[in-house]
Amino acid sequence: MCDENTSVAKPAGEIVSVNSYLKDFSGFENTRILSENTQAKTINLLGNFQGKSGQAIVLLQKSCFIHDHLPNLLTGKTILNKQFDNDIYGTYDCQPPPELNGITATIIHPATEKHIAKYEAKPHHVIEETPALYQSVTLPHLKAEQFNLQWVYNIIEGTAEQDRVVYASPSSEEKTGFILVPDLKWDGKNLENLHLIAIPYSKGILSLRDLTSDHLPLLLNIDTQGKKAIEEKFGLPASQLRIFFHYQPSFYHLHIHFTSLRHEAFGIHAGKAHLLTSVINNLELLSTYYQKATLPFFLKESDNLFSKFEEHGIVRKFELNPTKVESGDGKGNGE
Amino acid sequence: MCDENTSVAKPAGEIVSVNSYLKDFSGFENTRILSENTQAKTINLLGNFQGKSGQAIVLLQKSCFIHDHLPNLLTGKTILNKQFDNDIYGTYDCQPPPELNGITATIIHPATEKHIAKYEAKPHHVIEETPALYQSVTLPHLKAEQFNLQWVYNIIEGTAEQDRVVYASPSSEEKTGFILVPDLKWDGKNLENLHLIAIPYSKGILSLRDLTSDHLPLLLNIDTQGKKAIEEKFGLPASQLRIFFHYQPSFYHLHIHFTSLRHEAFGIHAGKAHLLTSVINNLELLSTYYQKATLPFFLKESDNLFSKFEEHGIVRKFELNPTKVESGDGKGNGE
Repeated sequence: MCDENTSVAKPAGEIVSVNSYLKDFSGFENTRILSENTQAKTINLLGNFQGKSGQAIVLLQKSCFIHDHLPNLLTGKTILNKQFDNDIYGTYDCQPPPELNGITATIIHPATEKHIAKYEAKPHHVIEETPALYQSVTLPHLKAEQFNLQWVYNIIEGTAEQDRVVYASPSSEEKTGFILVPDLKWDGKNLENLHLIAIPYSKGILSLRDLTSDHLPLLLNIDTQGKKAIEEKFGLPASQLRIFFHYQPSFYHLHIHFTSLRHEAFGIHAGKAHLLTSVINNLELLSTYYQKATLPFFLKESDNLFSKFEEHGIVRKFELNPTKVESGDGKGNGE
Repeated sequence: MCDENTSVAKPAGEIVSVNSYLKDFSGFENTRILSENTQAKTINLLGNFQGKSGQAIVLLQKSCFIHDHLPNLLTGKTILNKQFDNDIYGTYDCQPPPELNGITATIIHPATEKHIAKYEAKPHHVIEETPALYQSVTLPHLKAEQFNLQWVYNIIEGTAEQDRVVYASPSSEEKTGFILVPDLKWDGKNLENLHLIAIPYSKGILSLRDLTSDHLPLLLNIDTQGKKAIEEKFGLPASQLRIFFHYQPSFYHLHIHFTSLRHEAFGIHAGKAHLLTSVINNLELLSTYYQKATLPFFLKESDNLFSKFEEHGIVRKFELNPTKVESGDGKGNGE
């Protein structure tokens, strides 16, 4: 589609992108790993090409398995190096021919500082928030930062997004009523990634931490009416729904996510998501469960709340690299 | 560690696993794709090896990027076939030398129908397992099905995988001792996707459901010694670890996963993963928490346990398609 050897004339001093002529990775010098995702098998690198001006970002991602390639992939040409076996199980490092096992590479050159920040990861940390730490660190921080909740009040007071409402309790149900609306991230089209949010009318319940058995009528109402509305409107039965709180949430007016079980949504992992069933059950077992429990959660170093826990000596920053396993039993990295 | 060409003599009629001699995929006939995950770049296949009895399951997963390989990967030996470029952005199909771009293959042979069901894609359902349902449905099912735990006993009794042990308590610690070994899915190379399993010496603790405050010394020991061993051996501090149980687990000898926080591993979602901190905290708040709690979890329709809940009228099968939202307020699908 384009002649790779033709470089378009550029004004003097402007850097010509390596993308106009690159055939392989000759001359690439990797200066830093910006981020990676071991689940998705991606890695984002920063570096430069010898003799060329400007920084280059290289985004690599392993390809998913292509069905058409399978008959050629699973032959004698694909070597199996055994790592170990045990009874009926064997694990191998398997090396297929290169043309059957590609990597998708995206190269951004010349890259600006903004591009670099976009692809750079900051480490997350586990914080084990005891009730005392909630009172001394988290709560004062929330009060000081106080996100603007006007957009939430606009929804529950009926002055915004009214055409999107899936269910709304009668306004007389001040304590147990709620409104169910699509989450901003849902396209509203596919049931695969259905994502709704239930927002109680009652103000001042910041998060899970504030819940006691007094809130059981509210939570049970959301559970029952939310499931009923979704089955009626979208035909998804309750057994196909993942219903959960986030802790920490992204805003501090209590709210509950209803998503399709098939949707591997961001933020469904243990320590971030708390299933409504478990929350109801915990309050039934112990009315003050959420005032007494240690709640572990995950914080990025760039989060303001992280700095507060750092100031209290609860957690410290961690250098992400190097991350390889060293031979012998010496310390691999980090400290 | 073991001579790959020596096949242990088996009683007549017993199938010898291909894992005792396999060097490549010669003779493999793929009969069915059981499931795949395009995000994680994994595919699970069913098939057989020509001239060999018994079915084989082949689990393939693209490896994540190994940092040590990067200097060799990003050279002139790695070909870039341009797909397109636009201004500073270029996208390529990139073909590295095979030894730098492996696939992890796990082969299960001979595989039973149960193994096949385990790796086959079917819709999942939420099951809210009350204590009564555990007693009347889950427990009788576990007792009837009873997976073979010999491979677990081989590990804790020191007859298999001993060269892989990261930490082992003194054998005198019968009640609180455990062994820490790499999970089968970990390549053992990158800290990014570190995945170890702690297995208590004590037999007969099936799962979370059996835990009471009597087990706190065991759990606290695993928490303390597991974190210490990982920091000493791999340099990863506790704030970089995700430590959790699965419920339902894949086998019923209590075990605990230690993974790198950066590893978005399979099975870390709420309702499947239970963080060790929360489990300890729940037992401290209420000794019989796990005998009294309703534990929600997710079951595949192909799971034998699903049929049991179905027989009891707790859940029913659901047709995955069609899944688009219909206009109007008619039922979208399902019923």
